Amino acid sequence: MEPILKPGERIDDLQRNSLRIIQNKDGFCFGMDAVLLTGFASAKPTDRLIDLGTGTGIIPILMFGKYGCRECVGVEIQENCADMANRSVMMNEIEDHVRIHKGDIKAVKEDFKAGEYDCVTSNPPYMISEHGIQNPNSPKAISRHEVLVDLDGVVQAAAYLLKDGGAFYMVHRPFRLPEIMSTLQKYRLEPKRMRLVYPHVDDEPNMVLIEARKYGKPRLTVMPPLILMNEDGTYTQEIKETYGF
Amino acid sequence: MEPILKPGERIDDLQRNSLRIIQNKDGFCFGMDAVLLTGFASAKPTDRLIDLGTGTGIIPILMFGKYGCRECVGVEIQENCADMANRSVMMNEIEDHVRIHKGDIKAVKEDFKAGEYDCVTSNPPYMISEHGIQNPNSPKAISRHEVLVDLDGVVQAAAYLLKDGGAFYMVHRPFRLPEIMSTLQKYRLEPKRMRLVYPHVDDEPNMVLIEARKYGKPRLTVMPPLILMNEDGTYTQEIKETYGF
Repeated sequence: MEPILKPGERIDDLQRNSLRIIQNKDGFCFGMDAVLLTGFASAKPTDRLIDLGTGTGIIPILMFGKYGCRECVGVEIQENCADMANRSVMMNEIEDHVRIHKGDIKAVKEDFKAGEYDCVTSNPPYMISEHGIQNPNSPKAISRHEVLVDLDGVVQAAAYLLKDGGAFYMVHRPFRLPEIMSTLQKYRLEPKRMRLVYPHVDDEPNMVLIEARKYGKPRLTVMPPLILMNEDGTYTQEIKETYGF
Repeated sequence: MEPILKPGERIDDLQRNSLRIIQNKDGFCFGMDAVLLTGFASAKPTDRLIDLGTGTGIIPILMFGKYGCRECVGVEIQENCADMANRSVMMNEIEDHVRIHKGDIKAVKEDFKAGEYDCVTSNPPYMISEHGIQNPNSPKAISRHEVLVDLDGVVQAAAYLLKDGGAFYMVHRPFRLPEIMSTLQKYRLEPKRMRLVYPHVDDEPNMVLIEARKYGKPRLTVMPPLILMNEDGTYTQEIKETYGF
């Protein structure tokens, strides 16, 4: 089904199972972060998954494309994002498995039952509060800054939604790692696996991928570094093979 | 001054300022961990430093050799280790700056004043309690397992000893990172800098180096990966240059 595009929107090919996505060049386009998270995460076809702050819907669409999860819900508070994500779902004709829910992460207790999900994903706003932004109501600001929800709110929602032993997958910025670890532990989501993403082998990492398990036993596996680019600026073999860049 | 060696002991050259150290091949010899920590740490000649669980005394001896700190104290509970470390200090004729204190990390409040140190270092036991050890009273077990002191005890002692803004440098195992982060934050030692040590570029890291600051503001810098060996098994350039291996 061909979608109706609004001004500024375009359709991008996701290079997987013929999936496509609608994005708005003036809004918040999905980044490598979301794609790396879907490669770091894992899920089963029988899993029910929920993505907190789904934006364009990239994560539930890719998680369905990659793992065939029977139910993938994307929660998005912004009307225009939710509408666009919904049109991407319809364009891909995957409405039987992927659903966009327009709602507030802080209100998951009203909108969803507790402990029913196998997997929660999130690519939440990275930046603390409204530091250094001009228009805190813009879609970009809401996606990038903790204007409407903070890390504590995202983790609390994930803990509420997950089954015992269920997995929470999050991508975030390494500079907030101590707070990430302590917030996960506060809500009994034990960090079990972590991977740092380095643009080049001699750079500081610019992303961290984390898997936490509800009521998991303490023991973290830190994976080998995920290095994006070779010295000559081309993508590394792993990035090409695993992520199709 | 030539030291009196006990059975099983030998003298090793530290390749820095002609410093040497006595080790016991049947006891716990210092490892790369301690050496990497002294390279990761930094200190000034005016600093007062204390090393918790000093073993052979390798850290205070190297910190003095590298940064010339005016006072470096090594705290060690095991009589035989403390004695051996003390003989290393005398052999190097650095008693004016380096001192070994035979005592319990859990008793620093009785032995030292609060808030007087610029820098605390530790290469503490990595393994939780007495899991998988045959003789919990052996010197090796006490150095490697949390028989006499646990992570909480080490961090609590560091927080007590440090001045406001003072630095705590610790080397530990990555699998305990969530607990390390939350314990540091519990005692208001904010993690400020972290480096993961990978044997090879495609391995999981086997050590983590952490700098925390007393009452520091939250913001962690994760450094580029520290990779020990090239594919052919030789040490990498950084390891050779910075650590003299």
